[in-house]
Amino acid sequence: MATTPGTQAVLSGHVDARVVRTRRDVLAATIDELVDCGWAGVTHARIAERAGYSKATLYAHWPDRLTLVRDAFDTFGQMPHHEPTGDLRADLIAELTSFRAAMTEHRLDRALAVLAERAGPVPALTEVRNAFVEDGERPMRRALEPVLSGSRLEAVTAMLCGAIVHPVLLRGHSPTDEEIITVVDTVLEGLPETRRR
Amino acid sequence: MATTPGTQAVLSGHVDARVVRTRRDVLAATIDELVDCGWAGVTHARIAERAGYSKATLYAHWPDRLTLVRDAFDTFGQMPHHEPTGDLRADLIAELTSFRAAMTEHRLDRALAVLAERAGPVPALTEVRNAFVEDGERPMRRALEPVLSGSRLEAVTAMLCGAIVHPVLLRGHSPTDEEIITVVDTVLEGLPETRRR
Repeated sequence: MATTPGTQAVLSGHVDARVVRTRRDVLAATIDELVDCGWAGVTHARIAERAGYSKATLYAHWPDRLTLVRDAFDTFGQMPHHEPTGDLRADLIAELTSFRAAMTEHRLDRALAVLAERAGPVPALTEVRNAFVEDGERPMRRALEPVLSGSRLEAVTAMLCGAIVHPVLLRGHSPTDEEIITVVDTVLEGLPETRRR
Repeated sequence: MATTPGTQAVLSGHVDARVVRTRRDVLAATIDELVDCGWAGVTHARIAERAGYSKATLYAHWPDRLTLVRDAFDTFGQMPHHEPTGDLRADLIAELTSFRAAMTEHRLDRALAVLAERAGPVPALTEVRNAFVEDGERPMRRALEPVLSGSRLEAVTAMLCGAIVHPVLLRGHSPTDEEIITVVDTVLEGLPETRRR
């Protein structure tokens, strides 16, 4: 994907403080608008107004709404994950707990729902969704990779992420701490690779 | 919730064939419109046109779009589930395989994504979503209830459903047969209630 002028400034190391501030404000406004109003809310006019910049400034940095949303999800994806300790059980419980917190406290539930819903009708959003979800899954995959690979890694990552995604997006409530522990213990006991002997 | 005239006719046993046909056509058009265009597509005008009825007919049966969508999901929820055999492993594998087929062949993925995305901004849709998801989970819960209850039943149902929902809605592809088998075997081996001794 082509980088935007803001990204180039950051990459080249010559970061103009004004560009950094503009990027931060506009991308935060993009996520807010997306979460509040869905994909329909992501127009240069609405986001310029919400962020307090001119439409011309927005167009100079982001020529279309997709570039804007892609960059916004890049910053959204920099949310803190749990720092792994090497204890697989503790790491998975902490990672699922962080995921749940992001869903409920940082409105990741809304962001993912918009991506899930719009990725079909707006094919270019598929790329944004897939990159974002891949980033989100990475810490969990890293924790599991020493013991699992291939289709077993896929299946187990799907079960663990799904144990948060399904209740939050489709039942409208988060799993409890007790449920998260049941999920992790069931997986660890259920896999010959990780079962306690 | 109040029943619509069509529902009342069905419940009273005096089913006018014309009413049945109208309901079938209009509700199928509602799902099609919802899946193709999202919640924005669900207007009496568009659905009347798509189904080939007058707007007046639609309003007579369904006074608002929510009644229409609620009834449409009722019919959508009557999709065939796997007939349980009593063999828990076989039943769970078959139920997840049916769920995957509904996602990919009957566009359940789109319907669930619209419900997930719109249930926040349109609170009345939350009720439709929750009832629909509860119906969908029922066969899996019934299969598990002889061995699990309370928070363990919740957690395991979330893992199993999530193992389909997460990859389909957020990675954009379905789990393979092999992955479904891994999911079910991991759950059954991971639970003391179902582990083979």
